[in-house]
Amino acid sequence: MNVAILGMGTVGSGVADILVNNANHIRSRTGLSLDLKYIVDVLDFPDSPHRHLLTKDFAQVENDPSVELVAETIGGTKVAYEFTRRALAAGKSVVTSNKELVATHGYELMQLAAANGAAYLFEASVGGGIPVLRPMRQCLAANRIQEVCGILNGTTNYILTQMIQTGQSVEAALLQAQKNGYAELDPTADMEGHDACRKTCILASLAFGHHVYPASVPTEGITRITRGDADYAAAAGRKIKLLGRTLVGEDGRVRAYVAPHLVANSSALANVEDVFNAVLVRGDAVGEVMFYGPGAGKLPTASAVVADLLDAARHWNIQAGPAWEDEAPSLLASPEDLKSGWYVRIRGTVDQARALGAEDILGRAGAPADEVAFLLPSMSRTELNEALGDLEPEAAFRLFD
Amino acid sequence: MNVAILGMGTVGSGVADILVNNANHIRSRTGLSLDLKYIVDVLDFPDSPHRHLLTKDFAQVENDPSVELVAETIGGTKVAYEFTRRALAAGKSVVTSNKELVATHGYELMQLAAANGAAYLFEASVGGGIPVLRPMRQCLAANRIQEVCGILNGTTNYILTQMIQTGQSVEAALLQAQKNGYAELDPTADMEGHDACRKTCILASLAFGHHVYPASVPTEGITRITRGDADYAAAAGRKIKLLGRTLVGEDGRVRAYVAPHLVANSSALANVEDVFNAVLVRGDAVGEVMFYGPGAGKLPTASAVVADLLDAARHWNIQAGPAWEDEAPSLLASPEDLKSGWYVRIRGTVDQARALGAEDILGRAGAPADEVAFLLPSMSRTELNEALGDLEPEAAFRLFD
Repeated sequence: MNVAILGMGTVGSGVADILVNNANHIRSRTGLSLDLKYIVDVLDFPDSPHRHLLTKDFAQVENDPSVELVAETIGGTKVAYEFTRRALAAGKSVVTSNKELVATHGYELMQLAAANGAAYLFEASVGGGIPVLRPMRQCLAANRIQEVCGILNGTTNYILTQMIQTGQSVEAALLQAQKNGYAELDPTADMEGHDACRKTCILASLAFGHHVYPASVPTEGITRITRGDADYAAAAGRKIKLLGRTLVGEDGRVRAYVAPHLVANSSALANVEDVFNAVLVRGDAVGEVMFYGPGAGKLPTASAVVADLLDAARHWNIQAGPAWEDEAPSLLASPEDLKSGWYVRIRGTVDQARALGAEDILGRAGAPADEVAFLLPSMSRTELNEALGDLEPEAAFRLFD
Repeated sequence: MNVAILGMGTVGSGVADILVNNANHIRSRTGLSLDLKYIVDVLDFPDSPHRHLLTKDFAQVENDPSVELVAETIGGTKVAYEFTRRALAAGKSVVTSNKELVATHGYELMQLAAANGAAYLFEASVGGGIPVLRPMRQCLAANRIQEVCGILNGTTNYILTQMIQTGQSVEAALLQAQKNGYAELDPTADMEGHDACRKTCILASLAFGHHVYPASVPTEGITRITRGDADYAAAAGRKIKLLGRTLVGEDGRVRAYVAPHLVANSSALANVEDVFNAVLVRGDAVGEVMFYGPGAGKLPTASAVVADLLDAARHWNIQAGPAWEDEAPSLLASPEDLKSGWYVRIRGTVDQARALGAEDILGRAGAPADEVAFLLPSMSRTELNEALGDLEPEAAFRLFD
């Protein structure tokens, strides 16, 4: 079965490597042959072992009926969106690692796929190489999913881990991450939580059956976290982690948000360090399961793309139909009313903290005299804001146990 | 589609509960209706909400062509084996949580299923409710799997966790586990590692494509572990865990064994506590991924059984064919030649330990004067035995990082 790869970047070239290098293994374990026929890219790659497959003309793929499978690894929502639509319209199944495109146009593209007898699959869009979406959909089909919560962005997790382990500031840790190739030159999408937000949208859509768009998911990144916060977290037996969370409230409505949390050291998520990702799924029958592994990287992500190509080749996902339905605005509620314990840091006095109901006043070496950090008992964001009144906290992060 | 459950034990009644209580949810998320028609058991359950479905006569299921799916939750290799064969011969797909039956007769039963246009599925046999086998087979199909290693038995992991956290002896922790319902009255299969061995067989068979039988998997349980070993492990920055491991050596041959290991605290497996299970999979493309969750329990395990019923209903696994081929004795090699660091405890002197090449002499409070525990550098079991000569160690466990 012939395959075309769109975009010869990190993931795209990894997909090409796996299709070529593991071809015999894949054939012997699955009975399927995936033959790489084209790689579409605007650039030349004179040194690539796959250079003879390169073309700059997507129409060549589009008009070649022998190409049934397309791997889109371009990223973004412009060219990728156009090529994905044209490939699906031509009846080709498309698999992708492009979380932005899935979070923004996933429902529409799955509908287009279904209308043309094709599949649109995106296991690699969440958790890189970690199998997450397919186990959620298949293995947990018997469960009513109650919550999905994860460390979804390797760059910010690396930065937070560095801050905790080496005492660096967020800025210094970011530089380090850029030097190691874990952060992009423009780190906005990672640092501000946009990347985690897109993945949270995909998880929420799959868990609860209706498309959740990024605009519905309040998102806070890690740029406001200080070294002090990392130390106070340690004093509280916790670690600061950026979590994407989606859960059903008692009213049956879905909340989704991205924000830093102080995760209890006893939680499985607290031990997820460096560029690793983990997704915790809570279901009414299974309880809690967690999927852990490399959240990014050339071959891990490419491995998930190829697994999707194999599924698409078997037409399984065409039978199963789109993974979720259209947006259902009445299903969504603001996460503001979710109750949790809180970590708060203020410029003020211990008396002020006590007056707010502080249960634990936290300490750290070298804290300014007017800095107070403390934990508050379970309350909603709304209740927290009321309690704080005019007091502007320097940090207010939820606890996660 | 009609379903019969064989065996109204813990898992069987959990399957019945999920099929009845989550029926609407399952239909709305998958488009499939699973209707529970019979539960076969020799006992009466006058108080069960499912009592009207009970029958003592398996032939009723066997001869009812409207029953396409059978969930075998009897356990063991006697009645379960007979009923599974008869159900498959009648063209019904069978799904099971019965690791002993899969480890002992899996290849034969998958062949019988294929010959009759049916499937034999067993996601619930490893890791209880944790999706492990299906993600390994599907999501990692693009990978050459290099190693699978897991905490596969919740009972022994609970006992080891208790020993470490509360200072109990293995015997006291076992009593505690029995009191809490985590261990059976006859704990042999758990304590001696047989249960972990069966699961290791299933993982090895799936990972490497040929049936690996329990007789080929050297197995050591946890009965020889002492409180002192747990303390020495802590002194070395490690935790004692019972691991089932299977991996490919440089010669391309497969090793599989079950034994206690001193797992480095930095390993994701070290943080798997109590009755939780985790399976770590290393592939050439994906690197390391881990699946974590409840390794047993009524509803978690039942949730995996129901997921298999849904897959069987879709006939996906019939298309994909048997998960592995017949035994290939030349593929297997003894794990004795695997190199690793070692933890050794002897009755002797520090000088003896140094003479053996001890790198770290470990200490613990209250150790007898003639007890010495230490770490040795990487070597095979054979090399270790040669080094020890006539010296009989009281404990010799591999390190795992």
